[in-house]
Amino acid sequence: MNEKTANIELRPTNRRLELFSDGVFAIVITIMVIEIHIPDILAFANDRAALNHLAGELLAYALSFLVIANLWTSHHYLVFTIHMPARSTIWFNNLLLFTISLIPITTRFLGMHPGSPRAAAFYGAVATACTGAFMLLRSHAARKTHNEAHRLIHRRILRRTWLILAIYAASIPLAFVNTGLAWACFIIVPPMLFLPIIRAQPIQAERADQHAMERSCP
Amino acid sequence: MNEKTANIELRPTNRRLELFSDGVFAIVITIMVIEIHIPDILAFANDRAALNHLAGELLAYALSFLVIANLWTSHHYLVFTIHMPARSTIWFNNLLLFTISLIPITTRFLGMHPGSPRAAAFYGAVATACTGAFMLLRSHAARKTHNEAHRLIHRRILRRTWLILAIYAASIPLAFVNTGLAWACFIIVPPMLFLPIIRAQPIQAERADQHAMERSCP
Amino acid sequence: MNEKTANIELRPTNRRLELFSDGVFAIVITIMVIEIHIPDILAFANDRAALNHLAGELLAYALSFLVIANLWTSHHYLVFTIHMPARSTIWFNNLLLFTISLIPITTRFLGMHPGSPRAAAFYGAVATACTGAFMLLRSHAARKTHNEAHRLIHRRILRRTWLILAIYAASIPLAFVNTGLAWACFIIVPPMLFLPIIRAQPIQAERADQHAMERSCP
Amino acid sequence: MNEKTANIELRPTNRRLELFSDGVFAIVITIMVIEIHIPDILAFANDRAALNHLAGELLAYALSFLVIANLWTSHHYLVFTIHMPARSTIWFNNLLLFTISLIPITTRFLGMHPGSPRAAAFYGAVATACTGAFMLLRSHAARKTHNEAHRLIHRRILRRTWLILAIYAASIPLAFVNTGLAWACFIIVPPMLFLPIIRAQPIQAERADQHAMERSCP
Repeated sequence: MNEKTANIELRPTNRRLELFSDGVFAIVITIMVIEIHIPDILAFANDRAALNHLAGELLAYALSFLVIANLWTSHHYLVFTIHMPARSTIWFNNLLLFTISLIPITTRFLGMHPGSPRAAAFYGAVATACTGAFMLLRSHAARKTHNEAHRLIHRRILRRTWLILAIYAASIPLAFVNTGLAWACFIIVPPMLFLPIIRAQPIQAERADQHAMERSCP
Repeated sequence: MNEKTANIELRPTNRRLELFSDGVFAIVITIMVIEIHIPDILAFANDRAALNHLAGELLAYALSFLVIANLWTSHHYLVFTIHMPARSTIWFNNLLLFTISLIPITTRFLGMHPGSPRAAAFYGAVATACTGAFMLLRSHAARKTHNEAHRLIHRRILRRTWLILAIYAASIPLAFVNTGLAWACFIIVPPMLFLPIIRAQPIQAERADQHAMERSCP
Repeated sequence: MNEKTANIELRPTNRRLELFSDGVFAIVITIMVIEIHIPDILAFANDRAALNHLAGELLAYALSFLVIANLWTSHHYLVFTIHMPARSTIWFNNLLLFTISLIPITTRFLGMHPGSPRAAAFYGAVATACTGAFMLLRSHAARKTHNEAHRLIHRRILRRTWLILAIYAASIPLAFVNTGLAWACFIIVPPMLFLPIIRAQPIQAERADQHAMERSCP
Repeated sequence: MNEKTANIELRPTNRRLELFSDGVFAIVITIMVIEIHIPDILAFANDRAALNHLAGELLAYALSFLVIANLWTSHHYLVFTIHMPARSTIWFNNLLLFTISLIPITTRFLGMHPGSPRAAAFYGAVATACTGAFMLLRSHAARKTHNEAHRLIHRRILRRTWLILAIYAASIPLAFVNTGLAWACFIIVPPMLFLPIIRAQPIQAERADQHAMERSCP
């Protein structure tokens, strides 16, 4: 058995990292609906308070769905660049999954109390943790990859992701000034992640593939 | 590294799109049973009201199971035709998964209040949204595929799916006329998705493969 | 594009059938633990009633875990013999998944009321439905497979599975005679599925592979 | 059909074992957050008791996340060494999944009553069962593998894992002496699983691949 074979036999590919992560992503994104109960009173009458309550829960759910869908999309491009994950890769990934698993807890709290500064600040803190954990995983991927193009793209996305991290971090103190400002932070981030697509394509259509990667932030 | 290799290295296949979607489908389809509790009184006596309540919940669950199983079956044929999903594919898919994740919420509401016009209308609205999101994904697949046979099949199914969309959309106002009419709409759709199989096979047995695809609506 | 290529391009393999089924199996088997809450009183004292209650829940959970684990093991061998599932395969599988998704509902009911004849009868009915749905899927697999060895094994297992179906069906009326008899039926079946292994191996060690398949009932 | 082909056709690979296990791992690790509800009072005020309660729940969750993440990481390396799982492999794996599925029940109990000796003892018992089930699976893998390097690594890890089993087992009686001692046992184990990495690498950098395997305990 030569060195290379040994390597192949002793190091699994990223297949199970993807399987496990996709399981966690899929559960976290759908588990939030268990908590959303349409108030019984709405079955036969228009109750203003009940409607407002439901609207708060659905809005918080839609927001978190968007956040997690964005993270999954980026994760799916990112892990693709790490064919042979090391033990450290797995633990950076586990850290990310842990922060993401906190989203349903904070979403429910924000959905129940959309006007609470503490609920908004806690949501901001979890969003900051998720973005930070994702940046750690990406900078790890940038160090580990043998593909120079991937490394470059990871580095460029990382520079841009600092802004998103800053917005989420800012939402924590802003929540205590005015919860509306914190909500503005939460709502502004997801569209930001789509912006580069629109700008990049007309300019450099011939390098579309690289941009396909690049758009995978945060 | 030539152009083609770059393409292969920078664009993942549809594997993880399938993994993530199947996770969401599997959770959405089974999460509904968490909410169904057999009333304790039925352990030792035949309580008419409790039995009716349980029957309503089980009926709504069976109906939604059929809807989601149909969507999964179609999704499984559809994604198969997109070997290299673009970023836009992922977001059409995310939109579909979002609408499907609302099914447990509305199923529980309809199961609790099978005679409520609002519950039926809400169920119809979510079913309309799911069908619409699926049609968007299919017309996207029809545009993107390089396989002319797939494109043709997608287009033919799309034309037929408009009818299903219309039935679900009609159930929303009909629920306020008579909830029985809305339930009729919900019950009539799943068997419609099986009809083409029966009709198509005797006529064109030699093109069975294409029909295997075609039957994958809505 | 010749006939064979068309076939390959238009018919997905059993990969996603496995993905979706494994998702449902994994959720159904673990979702039952959400319902099991250790009574708070047990944190600081030995409460007889609370201990009995918990024991009933854990016993029902362990029993259902064994039933589902058996079904998964059989499913995993069975689907392996269907490389190219037809639309009918998918729907036989969907029927099986539907019956399996009822197990958590009935397990909770039996765990809460281990001495109720109705709870035991309902559990027996769901177990009968699961076994029946599995036999439908297996006889479908026996008809569809192109591998004569697989067909033979499926047929032999089917003959044996009738006994398990009969035991589960018998538990429904027996529950109203004596719940202990119904529990005896539930407890006797899982070990039966292990019996053939012990008997078969000493006799025909040279045909171990076939027996590996054969042991995959019900 | 010769012997070898028959073998290939009648024995599935470890793919579905991984799929099913990853589904269960992913659900068990995320299902715990469903139970964690931030007390409503914290939305608008600092309630000491509510904060302590939440802290206990989050701490128990983080601890169990670490335990399950460790088990998954080890499982991912371990199953990789069993390309063709036998029926016995599947049942050793099912036993492990059963013990892991008890973690959410005991985590919730410990999170609700962090100072209860019984809750700590029960947590220790489940952790002991998980470690024991993992050791059974690993010693099975050591017997079955045809790769001498894998066998050696499995055996070396097994010797080390006895210590972890002993610590968890010791936590059961220790919980009744002082719950702090039981908590110390729970907190000391996860870092122990990282220790070998730090020690091994400087000494035998050239055999890094083997050590990648070795670090996969318990």
